[in-house]
Amino acid sequence: MSTLSQHSRAVIGTLVHAPRFGELEIVTRGALVYDGNGIITRVLKDTEVLDGDLRAALALDPLLDEVVDYGTKLVLPGLVDAHCHAPQYVFTGTGMDLPLLEWLNKYTFPCESRFKDLEFARLAYTKAVSRHLSFGTTFCSYFGTIHGAAADLLVDIAEDLGQRAFVGKVSMDRNSPDFYIEDTSRGVQDACDFAVRTLRRYPAGARLVEAADAADADPTPIFRFERSLLNSPHEVPLVLPCVTPRFVPTCTAEMLTKLGGLSAKYGLPMQSHLSESKGEIAWVRELHPECTTYAQVYHQFGLLHRGSYMAHCIHSDDEERRLLLSTGCGVVHCPSSNFNLMSGVMDCRRFLAEGAKVGLGTDVAGGHSPSMLDAIRQAIVASTVTALRHKEGGSGEAGPAPLSYKEALYLATMGSAQVLNMEKVVGSLEVGKKLDVLVVDVDSPGSAIDCFGREDVEERVQKWLFLGDDRNLHAIYVDGRLVKAPPA
Amino acid sequence: MSTLSQHSRAVIGTLVHAPRFGELEIVTRGALVYDGNGIITRVLKDTEVLDGDLRAALALDPLLDEVVDYGTKLVLPGLVDAHCHAPQYVFTGTGMDLPLLEWLNKYTFPCESRFKDLEFARLAYTKAVSRHLSFGTTFCSYFGTIHGAAADLLVDIAEDLGQRAFVGKVSMDRNSPDFYIEDTSRGVQDACDFAVRTLRRYPAGARLVEAADAADADPTPIFRFERSLLNSPHEVPLVLPCVTPRFVPTCTAEMLTKLGGLSAKYGLPMQSHLSESKGEIAWVRELHPECTTYAQVYHQFGLLHRGSYMAHCIHSDDEERRLLLSTGCGVVHCPSSNFNLMSGVMDCRRFLAEGAKVGLGTDVAGGHSPSMLDAIRQAIVASTVTALRHKEGGSGEAGPAPLSYKEALYLATMGSAQVLNMEKVVGSLEVGKKLDVLVVDVDSPGSAIDCFGREDVEERVQKWLFLGDDRNLHAIYVDGRLVKAPPA
Repeated sequence: MSTLSQHSRAVIGTLVHAPRFGELEIVTRGALVYDGNGIITRVLKDTEVLDGDLRAALALDPLLDEVVDYGTKLVLPGLVDAHCHAPQYVFTGTGMDLPLLEWLNKYTFPCESRFKDLEFARLAYTKAVSRHLSFGTTFCSYFGTIHGAAADLLVDIAEDLGQRAFVGKVSMDRNSPDFYIEDTSRGVQDACDFAVRTLRRYPAGARLVEAADAADADPTPIFRFERSLLNSPHEVPLVLPCVTPRFVPTCTAEMLTKLGGLSAKYGLPMQSHLSESKGEIAWVRELHPECTTYAQVYHQFGLLHRGSYMAHCIHSDDEERRLLLSTGCGVVHCPSSNFNLMSGVMDCRRFLAEGAKVGLGTDVAGGHSPSMLDAIRQAIVASTVTALRHKEGGSGEAGPAPLSYKEALYLATMGSAQVLNMEKVVGSLEVGKKLDVLVVDVDSPGSAIDCFGREDVEERVQKWLFLGDDRNLHAIYVDGRLVKAPPA
Repeated sequence: MSTLSQHSRAVIGTLVHAPRFGELEIVTRGALVYDGNGIITRVLKDTEVLDGDLRAALALDPLLDEVVDYGTKLVLPGLVDAHCHAPQYVFTGTGMDLPLLEWLNKYTFPCESRFKDLEFARLAYTKAVSRHLSFGTTFCSYFGTIHGAAADLLVDIAEDLGQRAFVGKVSMDRNSPDFYIEDTSRGVQDACDFAVRTLRRYPAGARLVEAADAADADPTPIFRFERSLLNSPHEVPLVLPCVTPRFVPTCTAEMLTKLGGLSAKYGLPMQSHLSESKGEIAWVRELHPECTTYAQVYHQFGLLHRGSYMAHCIHSDDEERRLLLSTGCGVVHCPSSNFNLMSGVMDCRRFLAEGAKVGLGTDVAGGHSPSMLDAIRQAIVASTVTALRHKEGGSGEAGPAPLSYKEALYLATMGSAQVLNMEKVVGSLEVGKKLDVLVVDVDSPGSAIDCFGREDVEERVQKWLFLGDDRNLHAIYVDGRLVKAPPA
């Protein structure tokens, strides 16, 4: 064994995860052993050890520094929010009375422009990250604002609080209000600088920057993406920069081209919005008559690849869905936002059936709740509405079923991890992945759940998913580090 | 002034209520003075008193025993849950994978039958009532089980915990499992006995029983209903019995006839289910070919009157809606349940436009959450789905808007109060009504809401409605009694 197995630790509990769509795997009493890098090195069941005594078995391992026994509490993979806007947390829950484009102008842009004030940014981002994390989001993909210095703060805060994150400095250089817009070349430079600064915080990132800069003329950007850090759990930094054009209408062709190059050069993830509302699609068609679909615009600028993911995709037609699939671009379903902004009802089963990567996002503040439990519940509602449409359409066929809780849990863990191209790093309780887990206590004192003694593990999971909240999160681990400690 | 104004007390805070559909009335700093019967005798604004000093003005009133100043906290009318099943709280949040009729047989009936065990009933009902109340439901309309003794316990518990309630002993004598069904005459007797026992707990109720029994041959049952207790706030008992046939398919014509008579005799409220699913409607048509609508079945047995209210009404056609309107029967929208059981999407705006009384219900356990905040949020989602259907229907017209938060708050307070025929007693902050109020603190320590200092009253209300939970309920009053005290 390498030195990594020194400083191993273990947690014991009822292990529950959804490693495959629709399937729940339960180990009624099991242990996750993890090394000093926070990587799970063993998954052990009580049925595999002498007398079924996990603690005794683990005590025999001289390299194990610490064993925490959570009894019958549930140990689940952390929730992964694949799309949210950290600055918008300020006004979340208010002002949901406008459609997307008006809402952007009235609420979003004025609020985001305040983040040039770094004191305000620190306050707001601290509250936002604290809240997402305390709600069980161990890994979050954030949009920031156009301000590089504020984005640095967001990285600082995620690191300090111990949340895994992709952080995007937003890029936008057209069709934006005077008080909140970038100059193209300055904006591109800011995006590059932020990406490089963030990568350089970590030894592996610094090496990547060095290698990429040395091979500046490399004609195979996809190759660069393939060699990115994202698939090597031991090396992957806690926070990575994400290339983040706001969406096509607010970015010039020049900016999109250069952002595509930035993403390719360092193998960086890329996030944006796609086909959220019909008005937006019509606008993109007007702006880019050369493209047959909205996604095609991103594609022509090198922004669709397997490290890309797009929020919404409600109105993606056959051609657009094929393009997303063929490029490996992921899809982030944000049901609460889709309802609030009246954008439409996204049919995530169709994407899944076609083989697309689908995850879930809160889309704060289009979605009001920073809780991925809310995203899970609303994804089930949205899929129910899709199923009802089919049923009431009168075709007579059995339509698609609503998402089951098992399927929705998968989307919020493995699904989102795949979308973020991090499925080898997080999303389930498997050897080789990081220990990003929630310890869930459905009976925690003062919680909003009542149990009556006969509930089995699946029922306890359901009670948590449908009735639980942060009060049921007894402990939270990210990267093997305890970021929310159990109550004393 | 009568002796009632002795022992007056007052609460001060930011008063917020929705006395009319779509309107929010705000008194930034106001006082509610209430008498020893818990009845609001004055609503005072700081702009109406000397120097704007409410405390000083109230201190001049020698009859005022106590003034509690909640500062800038919000004082809102308590939430009114017009439809839920107390015994089903046991399994709420689990087993939502079946359509209505199968779900009844697999989950509901086996659970409800356990309530013949009074020890279990006491445990379960205590948890259920405590939870509904702590979530801000100051007035709840409960279905119990077929067991009269368990229904007595439910009344005891609501009284002890101080929740206003309508309690129904469920009646069902056909198409039910062997282990959970009543004999017709015994079942009717049990329903009558429960109603009389419950009325007799209160002086006014005892007088009503005596008067009704003395006039046994009275041919004008509607007259009796008109003179019921429900419209005299000073007399109205905290808990009233509610005639509760489960629904048409499980009740014989004989039972329905006799329950209609019971409701008429004592002027009692009557609750049941109506047009929840298409399968259920087809079944009712088969059972009652003599009726043109499902509601007509209730009507022919004397069960539709202005003290009646029906859960769901998703698939009510024009004729059925007209019958509900003409009889004064209320409609309880239970959006979460409708999604969970895939019953359909109820168009509550249509009912409202036609003049029907519409309230909200959690319908635990068809709805998973006992929180009326969840009912409010899901009512907005359901109305959004209705609006989207219209928009995407391609008529080109501007369709109905989704419910605003103000409209949804109205439904959960005044709307439900109207449905329960109690709008003169509760539902808003008005002189002559009972003090059933929530003191909401969006900044309460450890709550799930973050504020950033610039939120106005409307925004604080929205943050509570969309992001809040029981942790924001600083205090709860029912009938002028503090049932949840502020933290020490």
